[in-house]
Amino acid sequence: MLNTLIELQRLKRLDRTGWSLRGLPNGTESVAAHSFGVSVTAMLLADEIASRGLQLEMERVLRMALLHDWAETRVGDMPRTATHYFGADARKLAEGRAFADIVTGVGPAEAAYQALYDDYEQRQSVEARIVKAADVIDLLVQAYALERAGAKGLDEFWEVATAADFQLPPIAQTVVRQLLDSLLAERRKITEGNAGC
Amino acid sequence: MLNTLIELQRLKRLDRTGWSLRGLPNGTESVAAHSFGVSVTAMLLADEIASRGLQLEMERVLRMALLHDWAETRVGDMPRTATHYFGADARKLAEGRAFADIVTGVGPAEAAYQALYDDYEQRQSVEARIVKAADVIDLLVQAYALERAGAKGLDEFWEVATAADFQLPPIAQTVVRQLLDSLLAERRKITEGNAGC
Amino acid sequence: MLNTLIELQRLKRLDRTGWSLRGLPNGTESVAAHSFGVSVTAMLLADEIASRGLQLEMERVLRMALLHDWAETRVGDMPRTATHYFGADARKLAEGRAFADIVTGVGPAEAAYQALYDDYEQRQSVEARIVKAADVIDLLVQAYALERAGAKGLDEFWEVATAADFQLPPIAQTVVRQLLDSLLAERRKITEGNAGC
Amino acid sequence: MLNTLIELQRLKRLDRTGWSLRGLPNGTESVAAHSFGVSVTAMLLADEIASRGLQLEMERVLRMALLHDWAETRVGDMPRTATHYFGADARKLAEGRAFADIVTGVGPAEAAYQALYDDYEQRQSVEARIVKAADVIDLLVQAYALERAGAKGLDEFWEVATAADFQLPPIAQTVVRQLLDSLLAERRKITEGNAGC
Amino acid sequence: MLNTLIELQRLKRLDRTGWSLRGLPNGTESVAAHSFGVSVTAMLLADEIASRGLQLEMERVLRMALLHDWAETRVGDMPRTATHYFGADARKLAEGRAFADIVTGVGPAEAAYQALYDDYEQRQSVEARIVKAADVIDLLVQAYALERAGAKGLDEFWEVATAADFQLPPIAQTVVRQLLDSLLAERRKITEGNAGC
Amino acid sequence: MLNTLIELQRLKRLDRTGWSLRGLPNGTESVAAHSFGVSVTAMLLADEIASRGLQLEMERVLRMALLHDWAETRVGDMPRTATHYFGADARKLAEGRAFADIVTGVGPAEAAYQALYDDYEQRQSVEARIVKAADVIDLLVQAYALERAGAKGLDEFWEVATAADFQLPPIAQTVVRQLLDSLLAERRKITEGNAGC
Repeated sequence: MLNTLIELQRLKRLDRTGWSLRGLPNGTESVAAHSFGVSVTAMLLADEIASRGLQLEMERVLRMALLHDWAETRVGDMPRTATHYFGADARKLAEGRAFADIVTGVGPAEAAYQALYDDYEQRQSVEARIVKAADVIDLLVQAYALERAGAKGLDEFWEVATAADFQLPPIAQTVVRQLLDSLLAERRKITEGNAGC
Repeated sequence: MLNTLIELQRLKRLDRTGWSLRGLPNGTESVAAHSFGVSVTAMLLADEIASRGLQLEMERVLRMALLHDWAETRVGDMPRTATHYFGADARKLAEGRAFADIVTGVGPAEAAYQALYDDYEQRQSVEARIVKAADVIDLLVQAYALERAGAKGLDEFWEVATAADFQLPPIAQTVVRQLLDSLLAERRKITEGNAGC
Repeated sequence: MLNTLIELQRLKRLDRTGWSLRGLPNGTESVAAHSFGVSVTAMLLADEIASRGLQLEMERVLRMALLHDWAETRVGDMPRTATHYFGADARKLAEGRAFADIVTGVGPAEAAYQALYDDYEQRQSVEARIVKAADVIDLLVQAYALERAGAKGLDEFWEVATAADFQLPPIAQTVVRQLLDSLLAERRKITEGNAGC
Repeated sequence: MLNTLIELQRLKRLDRTGWSLRGLPNGTESVAAHSFGVSVTAMLLADEIASRGLQLEMERVLRMALLHDWAETRVGDMPRTATHYFGADARKLAEGRAFADIVTGVGPAEAAYQALYDDYEQRQSVEARIVKAADVIDLLVQAYALERAGAKGLDEFWEVATAADFQLPPIAQTVVRQLLDSLLAERRKITEGNAGC
Repeated sequence: MLNTLIELQRLKRLDRTGWSLRGLPNGTESVAAHSFGVSVTAMLLADEIASRGLQLEMERVLRMALLHDWAETRVGDMPRTATHYFGADARKLAEGRAFADIVTGVGPAEAAYQALYDDYEQRQSVEARIVKAADVIDLLVQAYALERAGAKGLDEFWEVATAADFQLPPIAQTVVRQLLDSLLAERRKITEGNAGC
Repeated sequence: MLNTLIELQRLKRLDRTGWSLRGLPNGTESVAAHSFGVSVTAMLLADEIASRGLQLEMERVLRMALLHDWAETRVGDMPRTATHYFGADARKLAEGRAFADIVTGVGPAEAAYQALYDDYEQRQSVEARIVKAADVIDLLVQAYALERAGAKGLDEFWEVATAADFQLPPIAQTVVRQLLDSLLAERRKITEGNAGC
């Protein structure tokens, strides 16, 4: 277990490449900080969805959110364009093998972690799709927070906010849609304030 | 829900004061990155403990780990010495009220979050004590990772590694003790290598 | 004396929390850098005020400005919201006790430093009120410098620029008011340029 | 040409992942800074080798050194372990396609840049092998500079210093060997000073 | 040769003062990263110019670009205003002597490096003037990249974009002019978007 | 006055070059933070000296400490080696002219600031010499704090600790000597602990 914990410390220092490539300062967001954001978002999202009547395995949601980026300790935080050049399948395969090596010897839950990772990668369960939505939402809330502090040039991230289809059941889809819409409304306030006319 | 998510983004940027006060560079570890570390450590720890026969409410463990530091968005990451000057009770009270304000209006799970926070602060359940142990272990694994990269002057953190009593039931206590002992053994390798004689 | 000097080095690394919480990069401003700004502002302000006929104990002004934030080595740079949750009195008490411990054993001037600190905290003398005005002015000049370099989302800091009443005698009040007004005028140039219409 | 220049700016901000993963601070070394180091090292190395009688196409050396890492604007700075999971061939293929896209439309020298990149990737010419040696030497001189400033945990980088075989002709091999040996000697001074016995 | 390589590592960490003085974060651009940008720009520029029929010694261009800022390891990255106070001649003299000391003992190419440096400083050859143009262009492309990411207050840098006369022969002058014009056009897109009317 | 305050903000961001050139991270210490350290050290030093019977103009000490580095907003923080290449006289002359321009129009105290600056530069008064001693002591206490946190390669700074002669009267000389000796004793504890034998 200790080896895994030591290795995962690396995520606290690893910069999210997307911000660096767009000219934001080093240290803008670590992979660990993003994983925290995704986990918290997934918890709030799932609690809201469950309260509206969709039954969810909450423990799976939280576990998946916490472990979905572990492979980056060995593969790095590859920019989106990298997927274009490697191919989405090759990337999934490589990250899957890295994840498998990381959890090897972690203890009795090794197989369970692997199953959760596979579910997330294949987006089979509702829980996996909610975590994916949380992944996107945390990215956008971070982008919003950066823009509010003065950052520019992040428009391309926002395209997903209108286009994304997470293949969620209606109740979940409604919650995600409402959250994204209220985020877009908040953003309009600052971008319009920006233009200032 | 959105307001809470936006506010919690602040934890991604907030430096853990302990490292800054000991002369390590800004950006060494954010509160969000630490919360991720605590959550992952709690998950691995609890899975190991459960596999040895102690029944645990896993969902509670994960939720508590994720939310235990939220109050820092309003109170900041106070150094240990601050507790000495404010008093432990005053600190708990202030952080508790900050937490309550943060989750106000977060949605249907508001009361549940508050109950989890209170449990953690009072360390009543086994789950809360395991999260506290995870909090300390992630601190020490981070200290180890920094020392391995050349940092010095962190000895005082390590005193807790031998002294800490988390009031855990025997099975859990054994797992935590073994993990701490193997960490201390890893550390000896680098501090001895340091001395190099 | 050496122990105090070593402890105060910590202020060079401690980030001013206000900027981090608003999404600006780590390292934006240290407490030591701010204390320098306050001291310089206090010197210029007091010299201008004195030249208009108000007699001031200049040495007190400079000493108070230099030592007013020392307690932060032990209590950290608490965000404003923290005062809300701890209460202004509890905060003053805690910082006062931290300051007392820091100067214990510093040498023959220990009592004098304590008296200056108490005066500043209670804003009894004109000198203390001028240092407080300098504290606010340096904050605003820093905010202006950040905005000029592209930062946004700092509006709430500027409210104090119109509202602040430092309880100063007329001559001092006029100087402070003129300085704040010319700062607000400079700021309008960049925020209007921003809007760009 | 402008599009390429704008895209290559990204290398100035992109952190070399190897240092981050080993716990060194963000901003330790950018890809652009490393490319500068490789180019300068290649120039000095090639001049020394040429002065001993081996004829070299100096212009090729300099061009190859300058462009060998351009693909990282799209693929990121992948850690070594990533190569293990993707396979060295897949990585070369992906980086080669990214490079091709970057130089598309750069102007009349497009084909020349592509040929230089291919030569470097296949290490066919002596010039390509000298640039590869410069790539490794700059990495080690950087590691030495970091260790001299207090960094630890970089031992694995140094294994290549004794093991590396760059397939160079005898004159070039001698120069590289001498340079590496004198670097190892410098390093011994600080690691022994470290141990301090 | 090793001593020179070790000393030049310093350029990877040395911040370009111009950005710091305008309130941008530490680590915005190192001297080494800028030197890389200048070298790449010079290569692309010279290749374009050569393709239009002006004969150039390409090797000289690349060498000059790589070494033109080496003196900063000993003299620092002085802000423009420093030249005003020291005098341009005194600055050239000091940097020239620093460069001479850096390359002393570097090996057989020492005299060649010195000649290239002197040519660059005196802008005698067409090659030197192209490198100077590349120096300015990389500065402006960096400024553009920063502005696109939200930076403000960099207007004074752009004055050179319309005013600069690099004393180039017509073909080269045309290429530089076209590049600067297309950069100014790109910039207008973001500054107008900024104003947003 | 406002223009001067805005310009001096730059010192909060300007890195002390000495640390960067020795491989420490950007942001290690700003010029403003150092000026704060010098001012505090000068205050404590002067109070101790005065308590032993040497009469001092305390206000002069504090003012000189606060303003002695202002010229760096225009000239930058030049490394020591730069003085070698420019000559100490040329450097003093340039910094003196920069200082004069900075305080032009600052208000009624302009001449007084200029006189204090000139006194400091010429080290005529006891007060000026005490500030110079404080300048060196703050440098060494910072070096000690960095070494305690793991930094290496700072030995050359410490030579001054045994060699420095500040031309102080006996009482002042004794106080400075005692402070330096106790600092050297503290340092021996960590360097010996380092060697660990």
